[in-house]
Amino acid sequence: MPAPLLVTFVASGAGDRRIDRIEAVRGTGLEHAACLAVVEGTRGDGPAGVRWNLRGVTSSLGYTTETERRILVARQPELGRPQATKAALIPIRKREEWWALAQDKRRAILELRSQHISTGVKNLPAVARRLIHCRDLGEPFDFLTWFEYAPEDADAFEELVGRLRETEEWSYVEREVDVRVMRGTSTSSPSRA
Amino acid sequence: MPAPLLVTFVASGAGDRRIDRIEAVRGTGLEHAACLAVVEGTRGDGPAGVRWNLRGVTSSLGYTTETERRILVARQPELGRPQATKAALIPIRKREEWWALAQDKRRAILELRSQHISTGVKNLPAVARRLIHCRDLGEPFDFLTWFEYAPEDADAFEELVGRLRETEEWSYVEREVDVRVMRGTSTSSPSRA
Repeated sequence: MPAPLLVTFVASGAGDRRIDRIEAVRGTGLEHAACLAVVEGTRGDGPAGVRWNLRGVTSSLGYTTETERRILVARQPELGRPQATKAALIPIRKREEWWALAQDKRRAILELRSQHISTGVKNLPAVARRLIHCRDLGEPFDFLTWFEYAPEDADAFEELVGRLRETEEWSYVEREVDVRVMRGTSTSSPSRA
Repeated sequence: MPAPLLVTFVASGAGDRRIDRIEAVRGTGLEHAACLAVVEGTRGDGPAGVRWNLRGVTSSLGYTTETERRILVARQPELGRPQATKAALIPIRKREEWWALAQDKRRAILELRSQHISTGVKNLPAVARRLIHCRDLGEPFDFLTWFEYAPEDADAFEELVGRLRETEEWSYVEREVDVRVMRGTSTSSPSRA
């Protein structure tokens, strides 16, 4: 795993992904915009007319065991597959009660009782995923979760998201927004600045 | 535990703690300065003539179990005790190999094989501690560790630091600097901006 990579999601009038919808799942939503751009490596303030931007870093694995890591590495696809024209940006913030728990208590809720990791594995290799950490950066969310999938895998992805939202872990989520985007004719992977 | 608190250590010609020595334990050291100030809550760029500053955030517990957390909460003293006139700032960066390990592997090295948490517990309540995370912030170190102790506990503290440096965990440390400071006549706790 490389050193933390800064990733910024920029919502504005321009960008290579069109925003289909923005849904406030829990708490305050995000302002609507026409397009979303994914910028790696710089602050990525983007073009003029930015409605919002969210940034964070790829980081080390907070809960995943070595056994789970091996399964993920073997089965999860790379970002930027040409056929994965659909994507979801789901920013999440958890309550202070969650962060006050010791590490083993959080792991027990996340995997033993909520099957977060094993549920995600069931959707591999259809859904490519990236977890971006932003709690330590003073951002409005704790995580920015990003998923890329092909139109024919959309139903399976909806089922995955629905199952996770019913878990004990999700009772700790106090803010969640669901941003769905569709790539245009371009099949390029996220730009690296 | 409150939301992440930004903490900045500012080395310059002014500040309520006098720097006794700065030792490069592993890798590149830090420039010498006369004084160190601890600033909470803002970027804390400090007075003119800043030699260096290091910032990070208090964060959730990365490895501590609930059992260990209860012991720590029961035994660890608050920061800012009047008698704890000595302090150490020990910034640490670990190799990429460490961060590439799954969470259970890092926990096994840190506690099962290196007794990091239990070694620290042995020095309670003599040494007050604060762990500041900065890897996700793009800072030159991964952690800023901060310890406050009374002069009569200095030998016990040196023994603690020496034991940790001999552990398997420490073989993953690629940069470490040891900054020792002494408080002046003031007995105030760190300033909150």
